[in-house]
Amino acid sequence: MNRAILLDKRPVGKPTLEDFKFIEEENPAPAEGQVLLKTLFVSVDPYLRGRMSSAKSYIPPFQLNEPIQSGIIAEVTESRNPDFKVGDFVSALLDWKEFQVSDGKDLVKVDGDAASLSSYLGILGMTGLTAYLGLTEIGKPKAGETLVVSGAAGAVGSVVGQIGKILGCKVIGIAGSDEKTRILTSKFGFDAAINYKTSPDLKTDIKNVAPDGVDIYFDNVGGVISDAVLANINQFARVPVCGAISLYNDTEIALGPRLQPILVRNSVLMQGFIMFNYATKFPQAIKQLTTWLNEGKLTYTETIVNGFDQIPQAFIDLFEGKNEGKMIVKI
Amino acid sequence: MNRAILLDKRPVGKPTLEDFKFIEEENPAPAEGQVLLKTLFVSVDPYLRGRMSSAKSYIPPFQLNEPIQSGIIAEVTESRNPDFKVGDFVSALLDWKEFQVSDGKDLVKVDGDAASLSSYLGILGMTGLTAYLGLTEIGKPKAGETLVVSGAAGAVGSVVGQIGKILGCKVIGIAGSDEKTRILTSKFGFDAAINYKTSPDLKTDIKNVAPDGVDIYFDNVGGVISDAVLANINQFARVPVCGAISLYNDTEIALGPRLQPILVRNSVLMQGFIMFNYATKFPQAIKQLTTWLNEGKLTYTETIVNGFDQIPQAFIDLFEGKNEGKMIVKI
Repeated sequence: MNRAILLDKRPVGKPTLEDFKFIEEENPAPAEGQVLLKTLFVSVDPYLRGRMSSAKSYIPPFQLNEPIQSGIIAEVTESRNPDFKVGDFVSALLDWKEFQVSDGKDLVKVDGDAASLSSYLGILGMTGLTAYLGLTEIGKPKAGETLVVSGAAGAVGSVVGQIGKILGCKVIGIAGSDEKTRILTSKFGFDAAINYKTSPDLKTDIKNVAPDGVDIYFDNVGGVISDAVLANINQFARVPVCGAISLYNDTEIALGPRLQPILVRNSVLMQGFIMFNYATKFPQAIKQLTTWLNEGKLTYTETIVNGFDQIPQAFIDLFEGKNEGKMIVKI
Repeated sequence: MNRAILLDKRPVGKPTLEDFKFIEEENPAPAEGQVLLKTLFVSVDPYLRGRMSSAKSYIPPFQLNEPIQSGIIAEVTESRNPDFKVGDFVSALLDWKEFQVSDGKDLVKVDGDAASLSSYLGILGMTGLTAYLGLTEIGKPKAGETLVVSGAAGAVGSVVGQIGKILGCKVIGIAGSDEKTRILTSKFGFDAAINYKTSPDLKTDIKNVAPDGVDIYFDNVGGVISDAVLANINQFARVPVCGAISLYNDTEIALGPRLQPILVRNSVLMQGFIMFNYATKFPQAIKQLTTWLNEGKLTYTETIVNGFDQIPQAFIDLFEGKNEGKMIVKI
């Protein structure tokens, strides 16, 4: 029997295991033109929380009693499609199922020899593209500028900071533990890192390490951390708004200081985005990321959890900051 | 004797007459290379409130016991500078004084025959440039899109709406009286206008006149009006943030719904600006505005108050919405 994970209830606030339902179904068999895919690696991402709500957004909400989807690396185990052979590895948005069929249309082949398979869910996949495109297309970093990254030890954040360094910025990371801030400076080359959980005055702590102010703020979290960064923002600063993980589980709209006066006073640009907005630039971005990776200029961290039955918990753990870098479930 | 108006106290909250001080001084006399200027028209603008605070901003704060400055049209009444002759009209940022001298460096000559002198403080001056450049450079309107303008009956707002119509947008204005909304649709050609003071549910009222959502929101006001517009915002919307008049007099930072989730969910761009950011585009912008004005495609309204001693009150009245269109004091 084949296992699948469905959305059982729309989460209210923080997602719980009760929001998900495991079912068993017949093993799928590929029809003519289809391939059978075996799930190898599953990406769990904060943005999935949005799709679990019924609210209108950039991608349609998940349906109740239907499988959740996310980025998955799978192996072709049976092929009735001439474009794929058994043993091919592919990347795609797929269902949370152990096995599934596909007509091959949205599958992208990945090369397991050129890089680790899981890296195609991370540094060479959505994570790397989000970091690279958000930073370069919206942040437009110039050498010598100061870049602050929140959620800096997360999958996207750690890549953003490294790219900022490659491009000549002073890079400051904000993260939620001393272990994370240590890694940011020692492993990822950030110039400074602040633990927001132990900072007595985040605004002042940022000012101390960014005395010239903040030119680019790559915002992964929203909330009070962003307030403290924006209090240090420079004229003509750019703020790519990538995520707001601190707010995703709120059941009421969170209140915070109104931003318009800060934006006007300093001619600040804030722009929400998803990487799909820049789809025409994917090939160039992946090429650049691969080059930096092969040159040893980029490194990445994965938190790999084992077992199909661990997917919901791994997703829930994102909101507790239990991951370091990209959170992936290996099946 | 010559009269001048100084900043006596930094306003706390709403400015009052007590924040200003009238003084008399010796009549100024131009030295070699200077001209003597007689003030004819004085522009009072919401942004001046920012310069009355000591907070760091895009232009230095006014100093206590020094004259306030704003956009002024003056006449050259004595010239010891070969570039200017008696009877020339000029536009510049000048002191709130009846007479003052200048070395001529920052004076721009204006043609009183081509357009009314006061129009160089409005539609052909800072007002028109702010409207045109904010809308075209940040809002990037496309024909068929829906544009919402707050503070729509104000100096900038009424021009923004008209330019939106010229460029083929559906234009909705938000203003604070039935008289203003009537003028927006009857005189300025807006497709619809909403009186936020009598609207029982601004979010729904906007939705009713903008059923396809809002593609561009030209924000002059901030606060709860902006909340209602942003609740109707479309994917890839652009929000030029021109001002936040509803917030300028707050003594504490106003709280409102956090914007990051809206920005991310819809890939929205918000950008604060002042027209000086686009100084290289002034000549092209003024040319375009003059063309539209001469073609009868643009019209404008001025509220003209008479008398040098009325300048502070005219400024204060801006925050009560007592002006219709550009507020100008004629000396």
